[in-house]
Amino acid sequence: MSAHRFAMFAISWDASTEAPRKSAPYRAKMIGQLSGEIFAYQMLPENIAMLEEILVLPESDPLMLRSAEKYLKEINKIRAIPQAEYVAARQNTAMTTRIWEEAKKANDFAMIAPHLANEIETNRRFLEYRGYSGHPYDLLLDDHEEGFSMATYDAFFGTLKQDLLPFVRQLHEGAVQIDDSLLYKFYDQASQKRFVEYLIQVMRFDMEAGVLKISAHPFTSGASCNDVRFTVRYMENYLPAAVFAGAHELGHAMHSQQGDPRFEGTNLQHCSAGMSESQSRFYENFIGRSLVFWQTHFGKLAEIFPEQMAGVTPEAFWRIANRTKPSMTRVEADELTYPMHIMIRYELEKQLFGQEIKVEDLPELWNSKYEEYLGLRPTNHALGIMQDIHWYQNLWGYFPTYALGTAYGAQFYYTLLKEVDLASAIAEDKMEIVNDWLRRHIHSQGGLYSPSELFRRVTGEEFNPQHLVRFLKEKYSEIYK
Amino acid sequence: MSAHRFAMFAISWDASTEAPRKSAPYRAKMIGQLSGEIFAYQMLPENIAMLEEILVLPESDPLMLRSAEKYLKEINKIRAIPQAEYVAARQNTAMTTRIWEEAKKANDFAMIAPHLANEIETNRRFLEYRGYSGHPYDLLLDDHEEGFSMATYDAFFGTLKQDLLPFVRQLHEGAVQIDDSLLYKFYDQASQKRFVEYLIQVMRFDMEAGVLKISAHPFTSGASCNDVRFTVRYMENYLPAAVFAGAHELGHAMHSQQGDPRFEGTNLQHCSAGMSESQSRFYENFIGRSLVFWQTHFGKLAEIFPEQMAGVTPEAFWRIANRTKPSMTRVEADELTYPMHIMIRYELEKQLFGQEIKVEDLPELWNSKYEEYLGLRPTNHALGIMQDIHWYQNLWGYFPTYALGTAYGAQFYYTLLKEVDLASAIAEDKMEIVNDWLRRHIHSQGGLYSPSELFRRVTGEEFNPQHLVRFLKEKYSEIYK
Repeated sequence: MSAHRFAMFAISWDASTEAPRKSAPYRAKMIGQLSGEIFAYQMLPENIAMLEEILVLPESDPLMLRSAEKYLKEINKIRAIPQAEYVAARQNTAMTTRIWEEAKKANDFAMIAPHLANEIETNRRFLEYRGYSGHPYDLLLDDHEEGFSMATYDAFFGTLKQDLLPFVRQLHEGAVQIDDSLLYKFYDQASQKRFVEYLIQVMRFDMEAGVLKISAHPFTSGASCNDVRFTVRYMENYLPAAVFAGAHELGHAMHSQQGDPRFEGTNLQHCSAGMSESQSRFYENFIGRSLVFWQTHFGKLAEIFPEQMAGVTPEAFWRIANRTKPSMTRVEADELTYPMHIMIRYELEKQLFGQEIKVEDLPELWNSKYEEYLGLRPTNHALGIMQDIHWYQNLWGYFPTYALGTAYGAQFYYTLLKEVDLASAIAEDKMEIVNDWLRRHIHSQGGLYSPSELFRRVTGEEFNPQHLVRFLKEKYSEIYK
Repeated sequence: MSAHRFAMFAISWDASTEAPRKSAPYRAKMIGQLSGEIFAYQMLPENIAMLEEILVLPESDPLMLRSAEKYLKEINKIRAIPQAEYVAARQNTAMTTRIWEEAKKANDFAMIAPHLANEIETNRRFLEYRGYSGHPYDLLLDDHEEGFSMATYDAFFGTLKQDLLPFVRQLHEGAVQIDDSLLYKFYDQASQKRFVEYLIQVMRFDMEAGVLKISAHPFTSGASCNDVRFTVRYMENYLPAAVFAGAHELGHAMHSQQGDPRFEGTNLQHCSAGMSESQSRFYENFIGRSLVFWQTHFGKLAEIFPEQMAGVTPEAFWRIANRTKPSMTRVEADELTYPMHIMIRYELEKQLFGQEIKVEDLPELWNSKYEEYLGLRPTNHALGIMQDIHWYQNLWGYFPTYALGTAYGAQFYYTLLKEVDLASAIAEDKMEIVNDWLRRHIHSQGGLYSPSELFRRVTGEEFNPQHLVRFLKEKYSEIYK
């Protein structure tokens, strides 16, 4: 199956970065076939029997044991689905994604709505095959972050709503306002790319084992420690898009590149969606958005963009790049408002799978929630309900891991500070010190432990979102003092 | 199996255009696994039985029949090889290719020689498994061009040697010499790309169903009529590299794009290596290198490179771009000397598989033959014996199809002239007329017929290399008058 996974990796990477528009239908058919083969292999009675045997053998080593456990979890998700239905669903999703692209371009939610409804309907039918008690959304949440449910996420987002949202509103409505027009000057793509390449060096990512490319939605994927790919998006009139997506994806990329080769081709390459996101956020927020980072590296930015940065100090750039303001789109959100974007998606997904709302209600509900939490109403559906690819890729219960990962990251940050002088490592351009700590504690552990177990091993504590609240309040009080 | 072929397409395209250096070993392992799966599937007794049944069923349709015949031919090639040996060989070849890249960079033939010897040895062992009478090279020739053997190729190359080589020597040593320094001026890559994009429009290739990219060795590949990829190589100090490789690969690309969707995912997408090459050569030589083509499109080139082309007429450019001179490297050869490069490779392959020569003798033999046929000795092995990827990709008996395809192309050219006013179609920028003729007679036929049968259907004649000799002599007599 590792060869099939590798094939899927190559096909998806290609599809997201360069495949021609008209290639979609044939690819969808081929992806359907490959998924069918993976499905059939997983369902082979001898395969299942072997995995079940590993679970009960007293001499199974922990790696085998954990791998078998994870494979069986995947198998049990789909075991009761007829193969033909499963394959058809995978093909449909590939087409839904392509239609979403067209619908987004045309700013026409009605074009994609029936396909989206169909994805949800298929999901719900598959959950029925699988069988469950309680709320169907709980299963989807656990699928992406083992051990997490609506109860735990409600508590998490409840904390953010109670302890962070008032602070956010206070800053947005406060007397101190930061002029961020600097970020919207013209920055040509080729020069931005030079800065991203500089970031790659700063972070110590090995480009002999990696590829940097462009895609509409930045992402990272990889086949092995020696083959990690990531993308950014250059916006010539908005500098942070490539700079901070670069740092973010480099976090994912370092996580993969510093993995343990033992896990290559197995299902133990990564721990969980939230754990992966904690690493991208670590490099983006706790390194890339820090004052000391810009005190160290602003010189390079000013060298590349001398006119735009004339008269700007590193401290001023840091303050401007971190300014907070209501925004319509998640990917352009600042560090402080970002979790609010996720909260909106979480609440809607919960209601969709609870059958409290319908797909046709989404645009209006979306806009109202943006108005409520972020104080502004999206001006069109392309920048509203259709802004993110996830739902149109049939990813449900996944968004919450973005906010969770950010909160994991904050707690890792305070843990790391006990052992590592992060500010000096950044100031002295010695990222290898930070990389090494993350490699030892997190990256090299792959998927050997459940997220909560790995989390306890790294921090010695339970997950606690107050660390994120504390970090953001301290940082933003400094910026807005 | 079409999904496996699609996976291999995506993986190879990636490997040849952007995969990072260190990704090679893991990919080699995965390619080995996928090849093993294809192998195992092909060898399934029920698969073979089904194919054999199609051959004898009276109601089999011609498409099914031909497809089964071709599959069985492939299966019989490898049927007797133990799967483990087959998979190991595929993995080895992937590594040989990578080592060749390093060896070529280092200009160190000794580095690659044992690997090359091993590829030949493995091939010979596999041919023994397969069983044959006569010369082993005959099998390899037939593998790439059904119905062709040393007897037919000896006759073909004999004609070129007897009727063309003296003419070539006469021009190279003659009084008329053409100053080609124009071709070696500086042409920046971005502007060259604009001209290749212009060529794409001229040829009517649909970029919504295609990708243009860069690779060290230009090639075309594709998954379906709606997904055709091709590459060029930009040399900033040698204009023809991208311009004529562009026209050449566009020939392959049109051939694939104009295929019949019925053949998608089957082994009937293409007829043979020679037939494919006839199409690339058609667009390159009989269209792209013609006088009327440059009378029509030189204006665009002069618009993109006004300084370099100042004072140059379309006729002068045509003459210079077609000048003939001895060259060390095949891919930079002019139309007239090109077949001589192939003849050298053919003679060496024949001797290698006849065990008349050894791998360690190759560099010296190569250089001597270049001196004999082309009047110049390669100055180093990187530009000599290591210039082409083919042997290091375990492709033997393939080179001859390049010369053969060119000769097919000439005969198609004279056939097309009976029905189509080619010069007017080019002059009026109506390539769709030419495309349509080629589509109906060749492209849409896919692999439904053997090359010789398709050839007869198109031309109404047997293959005859005198058409190529006539075309080249007339063209070059005009250029060198």
